[in-house]
Amino acid sequence: MITIKDVANKAGVSVTTVSRVMNNRGPLSEATKKAVHDAMEELGYLPNDVARALGKNSMNIIGLIIPGLKHPFFGEMVHEFEYYAHERDYKLMVFATEYDTEKEKRCINLMRRNMVDGIIYASHSVGEDFQKGIHIPAVIVENEFNGIPAILSDNVQGGTMAARHLIARGCRNLVHITGRRKQYVRPDSRTGAFLAECERSHVPCKVYYTTRDMFVQMEYSEVIGQVFGENPDMDGIFASSDIIGAQCMQAALSLGYRIPEQIKIVGYDDTCISHLTYPPMTTVRQNLKEIVRTAVDTLMDLIEGKEVEAVQKISVAFIERRTT
Amino acid sequence: MITIKDVANKAGVSVTTVSRVMNNRGPLSEATKKAVHDAMEELGYLPNDVARALGKNSMNIIGLIIPGLKHPFFGEMVHEFEYYAHERDYKLMVFATEYDTEKEKRCINLMRRNMVDGIIYASHSVGEDFQKGIHIPAVIVENEFNGIPAILSDNVQGGTMAARHLIARGCRNLVHITGRRKQYVRPDSRTGAFLAECERSHVPCKVYYTTRDMFVQMEYSEVIGQVFGENPDMDGIFASSDIIGAQCMQAALSLGYRIPEQIKIVGYDDTCISHLTYPPMTTVRQNLKEIVRTAVDTLMDLIEGKEVEAVQKISVAFIERRTT
Repeated sequence: MITIKDVANKAGVSVTTVSRVMNNRGPLSEATKKAVHDAMEELGYLPNDVARALGKNSMNIIGLIIPGLKHPFFGEMVHEFEYYAHERDYKLMVFATEYDTEKEKRCINLMRRNMVDGIIYASHSVGEDFQKGIHIPAVIVENEFNGIPAILSDNVQGGTMAARHLIARGCRNLVHITGRRKQYVRPDSRTGAFLAECERSHVPCKVYYTTRDMFVQMEYSEVIGQVFGENPDMDGIFASSDIIGAQCMQAALSLGYRIPEQIKIVGYDDTCISHLTYPPMTTVRQNLKEIVRTAVDTLMDLIEGKEVEAVQKISVAFIERRTT
Repeated sequence: MITIKDVANKAGVSVTTVSRVMNNRGPLSEATKKAVHDAMEELGYLPNDVARALGKNSMNIIGLIIPGLKHPFFGEMVHEFEYYAHERDYKLMVFATEYDTEKEKRCINLMRRNMVDGIIYASHSVGEDFQKGIHIPAVIVENEFNGIPAILSDNVQGGTMAARHLIARGCRNLVHITGRRKQYVRPDSRTGAFLAECERSHVPCKVYYTTRDMFVQMEYSEVIGQVFGENPDMDGIFASSDIIGAQCMQAALSLGYRIPEQIKIVGYDDTCISHLTYPPMTTVRQNLKEIVRTAVDTLMDLIEGKEVEAVQKISVAFIERRTT
């Protein structure tokens, strides 16, 4: 590793002089400045941010906890986090916990030991440890815990839009497939809003639940087989992710249904999946850019000791394609 | 932030004693050890790895450079890197450069300034800077540069398998759609192997090239429209990614082709996309787990100053589904 001492030797000045040039302090001749900068350039010297970090107690790192990156929704989320963190001069450290609470605990300790400036928590498995005290500014995405500022996608809006659209398209026998989120503090408002809207319009709707294993494996054929077996008359499905929606399309097409004439399908998220099915899938777009930008901005405010809102809700958008 | 001094005060011992307990040095009574550990536990104290890092000149961080995470292939790749880095007690810092060579340069400097232990480079845009000297151990994935150890997926094997399969299935008019990789040092061996195999079997094959913009946008309709317009007699397509393959399926189905009866399609990567189309797509699986594990192991060896192989090639697997 090239040190400040190497630079001083190369430039023929003292270490103190190099330090003064770097911090632009004290009277310095242009010749000295040039000699030092030339030496730095030639040696490929860069200041050590780790040494500086100790002084200001900050590594300029955001730690991001997600369940995993195999699901395109989280891949796209991490993409946005990297972008906005970089925009704000922060580096992004990624931890994929796959619902392993022991790994989650280890990761949080690692972040503390490494002077990570703030944590963005976008998983669902957080235990009491997280709530009891993580000693670092934190923001939570699509979840709520006592006292931690939350950024939520407007699930009530999304559920309502999906129901209104399917009913307006003529559906009279609906099925909704969604995850049961035991560890969510709040009830799943997306499902609630969808069902409320169905009830308001007197359209029956059956709900089927997926498991965490299905989510991790991205394999829903078991529950989807049950849905098709038990509901020969259904004419519309609201799936709580594009992946579930795409697998419903596969099941429907393999059973000979015509989409959208005989069955209509609405996904959720607007990941790349919904563009790539045939026909392309109608879905509810989560505004990931805005969710991520708001999460990063809020975390920056917390780090700077500013007041932040307890909950910020981000609007969704309904994307009509050709499955409805 | 809780310091070692707070622990000492709480336990009623000196800072030196706390330090000796933490490093398990010198004679210590069980009572003293317990008092210190209790105080650490109660205060939520964790050692500062950043201070330690300065001493050993290592932050235990791997820096990963990728083009972006919107493409599921890279999402899945980062997932594996996070897993193997964590297994080896390293943290993962992610940089998505989207082919912006200025950002890439900034990121490499950031890594150096932050004592990142090693870099894994899995993008394609690297300029001379990277080759001239990055002053950090580095491994390159799916690319080659002078002197940097490379982990390559066996593209010759993949291209050959795809050609043999399509020809065995009866295709006599093939099209291959792939990216032109100007900044690759090596020629695109996947395309080369596919064409060589076609020639050996006297099956004609036309090649169409995608652009970097299409890759970034994941939108290939322009070139795919051209392929279908110019080749009414084609009976098989080898697409160099599942995303291109899925968009070929959309085009074929919207034009009334039956898959696989009238046209056969083979994708590449075996991302989640190939499971989610209807029919599910035949594809060539890149062994991401093995690529990533090898890259991390090789980087660890470099960090430890061991000799490593210049090039390591990882086998692919042919996954037959229902588009062929």
